[in-house]
Amino acid sequence: MQRALELAATPGVPLGPNPRVGCVLLAADGTTLAEGFHLGAGTPHAEAAALATAREAGVDVRGATAVVTLEPCNHTGRTGPCALALVEAGVSRVVFATGDRNPVAVGGAETLRAAGIEVESGLLESESRELNRVWAFAVEHQRPFVTWKFATSLDGRSAAMDGTSKWITSAAARQDTHRLRALADTVLVGTGTVLADDPQLTVRDADEVALPDQPLRAVMGLRELPARARIFDGSAGTTHLRMHDPREALAQLFARDRQHVFLEGGPTLAAAFFKAGLVDEVVAYVAPVLLGTGRNAVADLGIETIADARHLRVTDVAVLEAVGQDTCVRITMSTASTHPEGN
Amino acid sequence: MQRALELAATPGVPLGPNPRVGCVLLAADGTTLAEGFHLGAGTPHAEAAALATAREAGVDVRGATAVVTLEPCNHTGRTGPCALALVEAGVSRVVFATGDRNPVAVGGAETLRAAGIEVESGLLESESRELNRVWAFAVEHQRPFVTWKFATSLDGRSAAMDGTSKWITSAAARQDTHRLRALADTVLVGTGTVLADDPQLTVRDADEVALPDQPLRAVMGLRELPARARIFDGSAGTTHLRMHDPREALAQLFARDRQHVFLEGGPTLAAAFFKAGLVDEVVAYVAPVLLGTGRNAVADLGIETIADARHLRVTDVAVLEAVGQDTCVRITMSTASTHPEGN
Repeated sequence: MQRALELAATPGVPLGPNPRVGCVLLAADGTTLAEGFHLGAGTPHAEAAALATAREAGVDVRGATAVVTLEPCNHTGRTGPCALALVEAGVSRVVFATGDRNPVAVGGAETLRAAGIEVESGLLESESRELNRVWAFAVEHQRPFVTWKFATSLDGRSAAMDGTSKWITSAAARQDTHRLRALADTVLVGTGTVLADDPQLTVRDADEVALPDQPLRAVMGLRELPARARIFDGSAGTTHLRMHDPREALAQLFARDRQHVFLEGGPTLAAAFFKAGLVDEVVAYVAPVLLGTGRNAVADLGIETIADARHLRVTDVAVLEAVGQDTCVRITMSTASTHPEGN
Repeated sequence: MQRALELAATPGVPLGPNPRVGCVLLAADGTTLAEGFHLGAGTPHAEAAALATAREAGVDVRGATAVVTLEPCNHTGRTGPCALALVEAGVSRVVFATGDRNPVAVGGAETLRAAGIEVESGLLESESRELNRVWAFAVEHQRPFVTWKFATSLDGRSAAMDGTSKWITSAAARQDTHRLRALADTVLVGTGTVLADDPQLTVRDADEVALPDQPLRAVMGLRELPARARIFDGSAGTTHLRMHDPREALAQLFARDRQHVFLEGGPTLAAAFFKAGLVDEVVAYVAPVLLGTGRNAVADLGIETIADARHLRVTDVAVLEAVGQDTCVRITMSTASTHPEGN
């Protein structure tokens, strides 16, 4: 299973909305017959990939054990059901890490058992869940997982009184933001941010070179956007969501197979998502700078007494340093009292 | 020298304003003849303690090497000069880690050399400096080192709009604050804090039991304090500094041998020290709570543009957890661009 998880975690895949899955076919004596992992929507699932590899190599997989990180699927999408493929290939035992919660794919274990195949589950389950944390959330909640990112001074300011903000959006925080954008499939801002700052919203490396795979650039709000805005430069996909309701916006993005929204808008847009309970993770870049006065990093959330405050759970803290530059502290928090998977 | 540093770092000593010092007397073959460390003002210095131990044990230290963490002192205070004691004892070589910057004590190395003793310095110097960081700062700057502590929500608030603040001053932060108070020799607040909150300002352990050695409780400001205030409960020393000027307050405290002020006052008092450049270390307890509105944790610092902002250097970040309680992030920062010792 450890090897299957390594295969699933192959960097750069899968592209699109599918979970990361790895599969290893083992002979009765424990030797590896074939391996496979899922490359992304429209390509064979991990089990099919492993079976194909075995077939091409002329390896007999009858009586083998299939070790797979996710319960084999039971439905025909762009590829056939994996549970059936395993049955037809004649494997005698299937071990998987975690059940498939996707309502359209569920039932693989039953199909396998009905065909007389021995089925075990739960091996390295938490590791497998962590690998597909965002996918599992989106499948379960039928909406994208939302990460809200903001930068603040130590005393809650996003800029000084005159609007200047040089050290708050530090070099270290900017580089780290690009890394986090690359982990999402959608970057979301409001029309106000586009009109005020004209950001490009692409993922660039430390040398400012755009990466080959770019998240969708989504802009939310009713105001018209200038055709010359940098978000329309063709360097990545762009969509204008002409609406104000966060729930509606997430529904539209989910309908387009979006599973992870990186919310980078201004305080007003962020407050709307937060008040609606639609922020799942908060990433705060705290600059060790004191201003005393200035623009608030976080807008009015409608909280009047401490009992109504939203408590977050710290999941990670890191000190970010850029060579010869300013330092900042990244605090990552979950808004869920339990793990996003709900377990 | 490693052993001498261990002796110097003996927990619980020294009491009072003296530096931590350890001394090991070595025979020519490297065996240990005697050890000593300084127990606090009015007691023998480390060298004198080691020489006394040797004398009591009837050990001949003539021709020995004295390894000491700080340059032997050259002045007669409540104890005689250590440099002279080492000369009279007949040691032939002295190795020390760091020079003594105290203007009244300086010159020990010269005295030793003039007596024909071989002198070396600089061994494990940075470790020795770190051990007496606050003492070295106070001696060099002729004022106490100031640590400013405050608690804030993630968005810079110290309380909600209605003044409630339960989770911002979290249980974990409160316990940690007591630990930090115990490292200082003075806790400083304004009269406003005493009048509003009536704090006891003592150091208590996790079971709320007061520790035997308590820092001085200093209250600054012109307003009269009620005789029934808890700071006058006799559980620790208390002083009312009837003044508004931070520099004057620190001068008075330094004149009373205070070397480390733990500033716990409200935003106004803290801003006065910060604006005067008299904050050397900032300890922020950041609660992972969002409020959006409420009382500001930090008062107006007179900063209008980002170029005037005070940049701090992050020296430590820790996630504090109290069992079954809320979590908070402690960020410790230095206001100096270089190390407080100025090296």
